[in-house]
Amino acid sequence: MEIIKILTKSKEEVIDITETINRKIKERKIGKGLCHLFLTHTTAVLTTADLDPGTDKDLLQALRAMIPKLKYRHPHNPEHVGDHILSSIIGTSLSLPIKDNELMLGAWQRIVLIEFSGPRNREIILSFVKN
Amino acid sequence: MEIIKILTKSKEEVIDITETINRKIKERKIGKGLCHLFLTHTTAVLTTADLDPGTDKDLLQALRAMIPKLKYRHPHNPEHVGDHILSSIIGTSLSLPIKDNELMLGAWQRIVLIEFSGPRNREIILSFVKN
Amino acid sequence: MEIIKILTKSKEEVIDITETINRKIKERKIGKGLCHLFLTHTTAVLTTADLDPGTDKDLLQALRAMIPKLKYRHPHNPEHVGDHILSSIIGTSLSLPIKDNELMLGAWQRIVLIEFSGPRNREIILSFVKN
Repeated sequence: MEIIKILTKSKEEVIDITETINRKIKERKIGKGLCHLFLTHTTAVLTTADLDPGTDKDLLQALRAMIPKLKYRHPHNPEHVGDHILSSIIGTSLSLPIKDNELMLGAWQRIVLIEFSGPRNREIILSFVKN
Repeated sequence: MEIIKILTKSKEEVIDITETINRKIKERKIGKGLCHLFLTHTTAVLTTADLDPGTDKDLLQALRAMIPKLKYRHPHNPEHVGDHILSSIIGTSLSLPIKDNELMLGAWQRIVLIEFSGPRNREIILSFVKN
Repeated sequence: MEIIKILTKSKEEVIDITETINRKIKERKIGKGLCHLFLTHTTAVLTTADLDPGTDKDLLQALRAMIPKLKYRHPHNPEHVGDHILSSIIGTSLSLPIKDNELMLGAWQRIVLIEFSGPRNREIILSFVKN
């Protein structure tokens, strides 16, 4: 178990963390098994994404547009309601297979942290299951 | 492996199950590892959420508003189509890190069951991976 | 660790892979534990679903309607933007409990691959954690 710290730089951002995770797998010589990522926040998410140039901005724009324009109740930060909703829908937990000391991903597949309320310090708890 | 039973009380409801899970972790003296939750239903979900007062109702209202108003085919219960769609999008499976006999969550992060078709008896299958 | 190959047959399709997974669990005599599925693609997803007749088409139609009609930047295939967005939202990773050499699912719950850009050859990486 290890904590990965990521400093996001913009209000909204798609950050490719694939190489950060792969480095940890190599350092720890995991070989073969599963890697589990858990993001300890409610205004950001972890998922897989295609990151052709421009697709990060397409994704951010689409996610924002999907949030219904309603009268929300959130007492402190009504502007965070959409961030919380996206976080609950997309999720903060991700399990990934490892082989030969590397994540087994598809050709176009990247592991991403999507920030909805940056810039901020974000933490991901990384666990391994060897098998 | 253990089954947690939860009786939901309303048609739509966000239920904080964090302490229920933490109690099981302590009882079973898991110490350090991963906890896996699986909800065996198609009209409810498991996820993480921010539960500031009012945000549960914001979330329920937003999710309901996101379902497109289309002519659906579902033969028995057309009113359940939206519940099934939300269940497939948000998901019924969740893996969480454990340390010192407790879930490792963020300051604002809670584990929730979201009910879309209550009141009902719901079951969550709880598994542990020590490491 | 094993790779399951699935040939999808239509542009959009909900494919029930429950029995394929159950067959692998029996072949490998997993008994009790967790099964992890990871889909190595960015225009398809893995999730659980209710598959009453017609609900597959309801789900596909609703998901497509949820994608905002915006001006997207994706350089090569603007028509794939929606597929990528759905893939990042719904997800490509799934963990499921196993008991008595079988997935522990609810009465109406099926494991599905949802294709958004077929027909295509799709691959799922299957891992097991015995416990």
